[in-house]
Amino acid sequence: TYSTQYHIADLSPEDYHKAADKTFDLMVERLEAIGDEIDMDAYDVEYSQGVMTLKLGEKGTYVLNKQPPNRQIWFSSPKSGPKRFDYDVESGKWFYSRDNHTLDELFNEELSDALEQKVDLFGEEQ
Amino acid sequence: TYSTQYHIADLSPEDYHKAADKTFDLMVERLEAIGDEIDMDAYDVEYSQGVMTLKLGEKGTYVLNKQPPNRQIWFSSPKSGPKRFDYDVESGKWFYSRDNHTLDELFNEELSDALEQKVDLFGEEQ
Repeated sequence: TYSTQYHIADLSPEDYHKAADKTFDLMVERLEAIGDEIDMDAYDVEYSQGVMTLKLGEKGTYVLNKQPPNRQIWFSSPKSGPKRFDYDVESGKWFYSRDNHTLDELFNEELSDALEQKVDLFGEEQ
Repeated sequence: TYSTQYHIADLSPEDYHKAADKTFDLMVERLEAIGDEIDMDAYDVEYSQGVMTLKLGEKGTYVLNKQPPNRQIWFSSPKSGPKRFDYDVESGKWFYSRDNHTLDELFNEELSDALEQKVDLFGEEQ
């Protein structure tokens, strides 16, 4: 799907919060489920009002947060650094406009590596 | 103090956590005191286990978090973007190695602008 061209949506504040909250709810639910399954003492997921933290001990800390004035989700990875994701309405995906890749792709790939198992935070079924 | 040359310390995990926790404790205390004084409905400070969030409504959300594997504090500003700060033992300051400026300088400056009052999160007395 690397040929898909995403477009930055001109979202209302309400639509932005709806889309972002849905994304965070999904990620938190699945990350908590993963935490229940895996054997990693340092693993910790926290979510509060638009800020999600995922701690992986020696592998560092991920922070994802809503940035409402920009209609973005900001992503901070201990592996790849920081990126800012915009929302594409048609696909319902958050994407990085500089390389047209999605938050789904990046976060799933990094977590699959870090946790040594296939991770899909955003797929239809789990 | 722009002529000061800072050096990245080779900290033990214990010394890193001690220095970082001290910095977060100071920032949180002062940001909470500012919140009690100013009249900004959206103002909100939260701190939990190495992650601090400062929400300023239309002016966006700051996130600062410990990144223990790197011995750094990561700073995400809605105004200036993301930066990674290392610790200088001699001065006890967190600095950005690319421009040799400190977290104190940057954060105080941005908050003074955003809140339209002189902010000093790190000074000796308040």
